[in-house]
Amino acid sequence: MGPMYPPIERKATTFDPAALQRLLDGDQVEIRNQVKKLITQPAFRYYDGTDIDGYRTQVLRWVKQIADTGIGRIGMPRSLGGEENPAKFIAAFETLAFHDFSLVIKLGVQYGLFGGSIQLLGTEYHHQKYLPDCASAKLMGCFAMTEIGHGSNVQALETIAVYDKESDAFIINSPSYSAGKTYIGNAGRDGRVATVFAQLEVNAQRQGVHAFVVPIRDENGKTLPGIRIEDNDVKLGLNGVDNGQIWFDEVRVPRIEMLNRFANVTDKGEYVSDIESPSTRFFTMIGTLVGGRVSIAAGSNNVCKSALTIAVRYAARRRQFGPPKSVSVGAGGSTETLLLDYPAHQRRLLPPLANVFAIDFALKHLIQELAAKRSEDMRPFETMAAAIKAFATWNATHTIQTCRECCGGEGYIAANRLAALKADTDICTTFEGDNTVLMQLVAKNILTELKEKIKGMQPAQITRFFLDHKINALFKQNPLFRRTRSDDQLLDSEFHLTMMRFRESVTLLACAQKFKKLAKSEDAYTAFTTMQRELLDLARAYVGRVILERFVEVVSTIEDEPVKKTLARLCHLFALSQIELNRAWYLENGVFSGAKSRTITQLVDRLCREVRKEAVALVDAFGIPDACLAAPIALD
Amino acid sequence: MGPMYPPIERKATTFDPAALQRLLDGDQVEIRNQVKKLITQPAFRYYDGTDIDGYRTQVLRWVKQIADTGIGRIGMPRSLGGEENPAKFIAAFETLAFHDFSLVIKLGVQYGLFGGSIQLLGTEYHHQKYLPDCASAKLMGCFAMTEIGHGSNVQALETIAVYDKESDAFIINSPSYSAGKTYIGNAGRDGRVATVFAQLEVNAQRQGVHAFVVPIRDENGKTLPGIRIEDNDVKLGLNGVDNGQIWFDEVRVPRIEMLNRFANVTDKGEYVSDIESPSTRFFTMIGTLVGGRVSIAAGSNNVCKSALTIAVRYAARRRQFGPPKSVSVGAGGSTETLLLDYPAHQRRLLPPLANVFAIDFALKHLIQELAAKRSEDMRPFETMAAAIKAFATWNATHTIQTCRECCGGEGYIAANRLAALKADTDICTTFEGDNTVLMQLVAKNILTELKEKIKGMQPAQITRFFLDHKINALFKQNPLFRRTRSDDQLLDSEFHLTMMRFRESVTLLACAQKFKKLAKSEDAYTAFTTMQRELLDLARAYVGRVILERFVEVVSTIEDEPVKKTLARLCHLFALSQIELNRAWYLENGVFSGAKSRTITQLVDRLCREVRKEAVALVDAFGIPDACLAAPIALD
Repeated sequence: MGPMYPPIERKATTFDPAALQRLLDGDQVEIRNQVKKLITQPAFRYYDGTDIDGYRTQVLRWVKQIADTGIGRIGMPRSLGGEENPAKFIAAFETLAFHDFSLVIKLGVQYGLFGGSIQLLGTEYHHQKYLPDCASAKLMGCFAMTEIGHGSNVQALETIAVYDKESDAFIINSPSYSAGKTYIGNAGRDGRVATVFAQLEVNAQRQGVHAFVVPIRDENGKTLPGIRIEDNDVKLGLNGVDNGQIWFDEVRVPRIEMLNRFANVTDKGEYVSDIESPSTRFFTMIGTLVGGRVSIAAGSNNVCKSALTIAVRYAARRRQFGPPKSVSVGAGGSTETLLLDYPAHQRRLLPPLANVFAIDFALKHLIQELAAKRSEDMRPFETMAAAIKAFATWNATHTIQTCRECCGGEGYIAANRLAALKADTDICTTFEGDNTVLMQLVAKNILTELKEKIKGMQPAQITRFFLDHKINALFKQNPLFRRTRSDDQLLDSEFHLTMMRFRESVTLLACAQKFKKLAKSEDAYTAFTTMQRELLDLARAYVGRVILERFVEVVSTIEDEPVKKTLARLCHLFALSQIELNRAWYLENGVFSGAKSRTITQLVDRLCREVRKEAVALVDAFGIPDACLAAPIALD
Repeated sequence: MGPMYPPIERKATTFDPAALQRLLDGDQVEIRNQVKKLITQPAFRYYDGTDIDGYRTQVLRWVKQIADTGIGRIGMPRSLGGEENPAKFIAAFETLAFHDFSLVIKLGVQYGLFGGSIQLLGTEYHHQKYLPDCASAKLMGCFAMTEIGHGSNVQALETIAVYDKESDAFIINSPSYSAGKTYIGNAGRDGRVATVFAQLEVNAQRQGVHAFVVPIRDENGKTLPGIRIEDNDVKLGLNGVDNGQIWFDEVRVPRIEMLNRFANVTDKGEYVSDIESPSTRFFTMIGTLVGGRVSIAAGSNNVCKSALTIAVRYAARRRQFGPPKSVSVGAGGSTETLLLDYPAHQRRLLPPLANVFAIDFALKHLIQELAAKRSEDMRPFETMAAAIKAFATWNATHTIQTCRECCGGEGYIAANRLAALKADTDICTTFEGDNTVLMQLVAKNILTELKEKIKGMQPAQITRFFLDHKINALFKQNPLFRRTRSDDQLLDSEFHLTMMRFRESVTLLACAQKFKKLAKSEDAYTAFTTMQRELLDLARAYVGRVILERFVEVVSTIEDEPVKKTLARLCHLFALSQIELNRAWYLENGVFSGAKSRTITQLVDRLCREVRKEAVALVDAFGIPDACLAAPIALD
């Protein structure tokens, strides 16, 4: 019958895909290769049944196998034989995302959330007691924060932990149905213990949300007294993870089981904390868990790479329609047109391809910052992490959907993997912070920064600050600038950066003014709610600028000329397609003439045509093992 | 433990939801109610297993139960006891889309595709022989057009049917792997016979694609000699449908089994057809199947209604964050803010809600036209059907995704149904014509119409035509028009229509000029390929205008004043959010000043705030039975 699919067209490229892959692999090449070696072994063949319990069993088996290689110790303290190397851990984590995403999430729950909360919120006692067994996956654990009634507003959780002086213990209760913990990974089946977030009450005084280590099942997996667990059952995706709901009825844990790095209950039964403000305390605790956001962004961006690899390779072998008299018969001899040669197809796949590179570099920077663990104010870092998490996960959802559609019916067949990539990552826009909520947080943080900046200024400096801004704005709106549309300007990263920064700063000042006006008659919550659209615009402007800055920075440091040229082109495509997406703003604000705006659209077309020639080599440079891709439409 | 979810907030509305539902149900209220009665019976409880064979068995059982009610006869010829009422059939079909979409698709395959091809491409012999058993679902059939190598370009199918004079039969062959029929519903398990599309060869001459009725399995379900079938296996969704692949090896069918309405092979072994051009013949045959496109659009729009009902109702009961000192404890007493009261949430859900109404009315018009079966040129109708199918199915994919995200983690739980709604309709953007291909077809048809219009004109008329256009354009670009931003203008449907028509006509003339220029040096295929982006812009401008025209028309005929006012507001929201989406075009072309464009954005915000008050009543008016919605988060 001949081959199933015609060969993938591979064009000669000016750059060496292996050199680009080295750049993407970066410092962490060793752990990446180690993980790839593991997940391409026969034991890691994808589960292809539809039975959920079988799937969960398979994923647990994989978790144990991975734990046996010592991955769980990478992030742990040196004192316990760990490496204290979060950058390496995230590299392992994101490489695993080339494989089954249920496995990635279950590992994330075990090490990032359960292990991470013990390590970052607990102290020596908890580290000694729990971390070694967590690392070896002997003790499977949960991170029980989210409740049925509160997912985003976790400061308002309902679960209560009342300190009982007499027994020197906390009594944990779920006062209502909606107080039930939900979506808790490992709770459905495998978890034995949970980090439980609850409102702490000591001496009849509420102290806000704190975390406690609570056993939920005995060694044989039997639910402990006072604990009620219900399975979250079938989900849209991630069915290899045993999510469950937990309610507590008078569950007692000894005082020592409170994770007491930031606050404690003394043996005299008194609440103490070095952080005075309950709100600051809460956000300090939560802030330590920011690594989860970075990891999810990195993981979903790597899933996105898999989807693009499948869709680009298929577009480089699938032919449909063609010039008059094109031969269409048979797998080999067709002279119909490759999908990848259609401008519409290029437009759908190649700007997302540029996005994935852009996000990758931005994340590498974030991970460096995370690993550096600067002791100063963490807020700028948290702002960036939240924004990039939202951008990366929305991009993944949107891009994987596009890849499915670009592969037509083949994209709908489970064997071609896009179904799983799509379903499993879909929740990334929600968990570790709902994207819409995160983006508002981002905007509020930026506004706060501005406020603090202005606060420190002398009146003359403030006048100067706004004047500079005004002059800047007038320059961008002058007719000469508005109309210039030479390649020299439009294909210059300085122009792109200027445009992105300008939009961000104008949007920021407009938001600041609007907030000032609204705050005269309304509380801050109501004012921010009223201006949600504007806040989201600001956050989008911010994240585009931040990501572009990293991309431009990375390109400027590359020494391999052909790789540099290729990435510079992708960087232009990223920048111009982002500017094109927001061209209405530039037109509304008199920064672009109509003709200039149209020229940018044409330039995006042209860049797509150019990137198309290297598209297959670009996805090859992601270095995703064939055994992981697995899709017949994407394999030679 | 108290109730699972707080009550759904239902505000008093000025209009009567029942009156709006009557408008939506229209003439076909009786069949709609009949179908609803059926699918809310206990036998129609959703299949909640994960076993695919069990699911298929369940769906087949439902198909038989529905067939027993006589639905299969609605579309069939009167001579066979049918009603020949396609409008009624589509009403039944789209109402079934409130239930399991696998069932809808399996029924669509059986009646629309298999039965439809027999009825519309065949003649009396075929009708008598196949239609009664098709209607009763005693004979399950397939529609075997798509091949592995050809989905969009079906004119280039590889399957061959050679007429053999000696045996007075056709010999059907699949010459390669890629010639295999694929994605054929009912082929995986239940089908006994298939309408097979193949290149007809008579006396060594190719005559293009024709259809033949070919038995594929015997009465016991055993595959017949010469037939090879492989299951398409697990898919992203629609796993209740048994899709399969079919290859033919020297399969003989008697001459009489060719569906010979438009072409025939005589008993002398000669090929005859009243339609001379092979291309016209092919598109005439394919054109008869346009009802499938309309049905898919209607079905997916109704699934979209289910998704919006779930997301809007959830947003009217779910509270998160709130003003300072808001009470957050418990399901009943919370004073946190309802999601539906957040402007960002309104922005995400309410323009899609307006879209669904707009599409519904456009489809009602299409269905009327289809039922009227005008014998004149079908092309304008086909253009409209293709455009609306693409618009409706993309809107469904995008909207259901938004609904999932708006319901957060709850949206990811299978029991809340959004997972199935999303997965099952995802393929609608691909099948019955890939949307991107359809939209190009739409643009080409519009260009052809323009060409024919100009062809019939005297030179003076042509000059006048372009002059009118120029004057029209200049008027829209005059400073007065550009700057006006009164409610009187911006909330006037005449203004919306003018804007939509203007964009369409400018885009059309630009396309015509570009094509003329390109066609000087390139063949039409290459010229069209080069200008794909522009063609897609044109098709989008066209479909927006067509849908708005219907919406405005419907509103103008409503007599119930409160309903009219509500729908007028939705119509404005539809129009302005479409114009906002395309505001860059209006700015680029000097039609809007920056301030006017910003005012439109603010107006969309305002309309969202207004529609929010009626949102729950609006989704209630869809009249979707609770048993079909089934999502706990959406039920009182």
